[in-house]
Amino acid sequence: MDQSLAVSVNQALSDDYQRLADYLHIETVSAQHRGINETVAFLKQSFEALGAIVQIFDEFEGNPFVFATFSAGPQGNANKTLLFYNHYDVQPPEPLDEWQTKPFDLAEVDGKYVARGVADDKGELMARLSAVKALQNAGGLPCNLKFIVEGEEEVGSLHVDQMTAAHAADLRANALVWETGGKDANEDFAITCGVKGIVSFELTVSTADVDLHSSLAAYADNAAWRLTKALASLRDADNHVLVDGFYDDIKPLTLSEQQAVHDMHFNGEKTKQAWGLKRPFVSTDPKMAIVNEPTMTINGLTSGYEGDGVKTVIPKFAKAKLDCRLVPGQEPQHIAELVAAQLVKNGFPDVKLQFLLGEQPFRSNLDASFIQQAATVAHEVYGDHVALVPNAAGGGPQAPFYDAVQVPIVAVGANWSGSGPHAPNESVRISDYAQDVLYTARLLQAFGKQ
Amino acid sequence: MDQSLAVSVNQALSDDYQRLADYLHIETVSAQHRGINETVAFLKQSFEALGAIVQIFDEFEGNPFVFATFSAGPQGNANKTLLFYNHYDVQPPEPLDEWQTKPFDLAEVDGKYVARGVADDKGELMARLSAVKALQNAGGLPCNLKFIVEGEEEVGSLHVDQMTAAHAADLRANALVWETGGKDANEDFAITCGVKGIVSFELTVSTADVDLHSSLAAYADNAAWRLTKALASLRDADNHVLVDGFYDDIKPLTLSEQQAVHDMHFNGEKTKQAWGLKRPFVSTDPKMAIVNEPTMTINGLTSGYEGDGVKTVIPKFAKAKLDCRLVPGQEPQHIAELVAAQLVKNGFPDVKLQFLLGEQPFRSNLDASFIQQAATVAHEVYGDHVALVPNAAGGGPQAPFYDAVQVPIVAVGANWSGSGPHAPNESVRISDYAQDVLYTARLLQAFGKQ
Repeated sequence: MDQSLAVSVNQALSDDYQRLADYLHIETVSAQHRGINETVAFLKQSFEALGAIVQIFDEFEGNPFVFATFSAGPQGNANKTLLFYNHYDVQPPEPLDEWQTKPFDLAEVDGKYVARGVADDKGELMARLSAVKALQNAGGLPCNLKFIVEGEEEVGSLHVDQMTAAHAADLRANALVWETGGKDANEDFAITCGVKGIVSFELTVSTADVDLHSSLAAYADNAAWRLTKALASLRDADNHVLVDGFYDDIKPLTLSEQQAVHDMHFNGEKTKQAWGLKRPFVSTDPKMAIVNEPTMTINGLTSGYEGDGVKTVIPKFAKAKLDCRLVPGQEPQHIAELVAAQLVKNGFPDVKLQFLLGEQPFRSNLDASFIQQAATVAHEVYGDHVALVPNAAGGGPQAPFYDAVQVPIVAVGANWSGSGPHAPNESVRISDYAQDVLYTARLLQAFGKQ
Repeated sequence: MDQSLAVSVNQALSDDYQRLADYLHIETVSAQHRGINETVAFLKQSFEALGAIVQIFDEFEGNPFVFATFSAGPQGNANKTLLFYNHYDVQPPEPLDEWQTKPFDLAEVDGKYVARGVADDKGELMARLSAVKALQNAGGLPCNLKFIVEGEEEVGSLHVDQMTAAHAADLRANALVWETGGKDANEDFAITCGVKGIVSFELTVSTADVDLHSSLAAYADNAAWRLTKALASLRDADNHVLVDGFYDDIKPLTLSEQQAVHDMHFNGEKTKQAWGLKRPFVSTDPKMAIVNEPTMTINGLTSGYEGDGVKTVIPKFAKAKLDCRLVPGQEPQHIAELVAAQLVKNGFPDVKLQFLLGEQPFRSNLDASFIQQAATVAHEVYGDHVALVPNAAGGGPQAPFYDAVQVPIVAVGANWSGSGPHAPNESVRISDYAQDVLYTARLLQAFGKQ
């Protein structure tokens, strides 16, 4: 390990503490349309202070994208470019009374940085900028860098498709490092090489013009029963989706992916404790399920009387919200169409499906040299505790980026299993944060050499 | 038909109009604890003005019962006593903006009386008092009368059990005329001789301490799915309840009851239009279903995210409210126990059943002479358009009354199919109201003679 780099990293961390605090102090809540312009100005200045050329992509309807480019240093490799994807918006801080410190004031508690956005994703971007500074101070950047920072990740990345299509040339790079990552419940540092896709939809059914007195149940149908029976027909007790064609297009895992899944750790007991899970797992192979099993989730149910006590009513209307997490090969719109067709086939033509949103799944080629490099550097920095994860259980707009840049994508970062990215008292451990800066700097050095 | 009685009825209707308006003007909303004492005082005075002896049963926790007794006139039969059951409380008037007149001001619109309670059940009690006055003016009461008027019918008749047990001797009578009745969608005047029972319960299931990100659906169970599958296991698509023992104790219909069901009319098309029903009936024999098929109704569903847009969450908790309408032979508490046992048997021990309320079913013996008498008089007043209904599809606390007095019970009244008893613009047709007074007076005459 390069000791001079480690020293330079520590210096950058110390120098950049105030910038981290200042960035977190801006209340960049996209869901509440707060702090956007101030944050964009802050980032422009921060990038420029490090020598980047900054462009603001604001030709779309939503919050501007900040795009910054750095050229490789004099000893660096000007033929290699690494692209970073981050977002500057954060979740709302509510519920405020559950915070032990002020949400937008960086606090240090028990070896952790605590603030809204410190884990997701403001802290990680600042860590990456500290890596840039450390490398600059240790002899110069080993490669070209590009940063694309969006401001709508927490509200669905509404304009990433348009931006990546419009700016594919600007974004061109040899590899893409995604936002968010870190250590899992086993303290394994995860290198995650893809995302699941998603399709969200609503099912509604209407059986009468008015809610009926339940004495009429002798002959009148019930929207809540229709919905319940329709939903129950879509999934068995073992989490298997009973929709014709649902599983047909799933890409089988490559040997490398199978090996990666095999090497992943999953601590069932810790997971159950962390969330207070009261039921057995719905999959016999959670690691495989995380990577390559699609899901169908009821997000919410609404029908009839939901208050206290008794109301003897037959609901005229019932609604369910659902999402399906999809794996490579599955296409969101097509899956929604299959579900709608299955409802008709199962005898529920009156249960209407409304498509809400879709996002494609994506998985990098695990055999790509950049991915192997990311793992090799991780072993240098984190020791044995490294997990190569073919794709996350969750989502993100990686597919449109891949369509634009056609390079491997890895997600790495400074989170830990207790970061609580959308919860009160969001945190990163200070030691993880420092390790992440070092890892990022080392990854850039390795990337520039090849 | 006794023409002098008809004249006397018309006179009483004219004389009593203001009393009807005054009674409806009191805002006796039991759910809002409004107007109770004022109403009790009004009724005491109204009964006493007609010569009744009035007692207030107020030794229970809830709203007082008004109990009034009239002795037979000099030519009447002092050995026969008819008991009337009514209630003085009404539903809340909300939603106020849907009323075309003021809810507590008696209005005449298109040949109808319109006001909150005019159908359910203040109007019917006042019609009965007009019948009393008409008989008094036409020679005296043909029998003894008792009136028991409760003030909690709209909130579940919470103290009828206690009252009937404590005052069985006071209530003693040879027959009981129940509140509410009138003409159905076919303009048949219904003589309804019983009620379905009910058991209401809540099903809840909890799968985690917190709502989870739906990416965890790869392995974490979902309360909404648990509830959906549990519910779906309790009832098939044909309205058949899949609970072991659910149908075992149902009393088969007697020949008279079968004949009565056969003679009932049910206009499917009119019924569908009246409620805007969008689905086929869930029973192939609605008339039989109304009388002797129990039901299981989902009254409401609640789980997870119920707002607009998308929230990719696995609900930690889900809740359903249900009621079962029960027929003679079925016992509410026992049915709840069967449902709970079935949930365990079906693999849902985590879905908890909480009993909310129960009410016994009841059906009079259709061969009782009083019931035949009620039908005979109905044919005299209403012509061919008379239906003898073994029991209503809905409920009411008839069983505890029967336990106390052990006599046949018939429900008759002045409603029409558009009365909308719990809805804005509640109404009775003025001609029906007058006919009801005449019917009541004629029934008392016939009852006194036997």
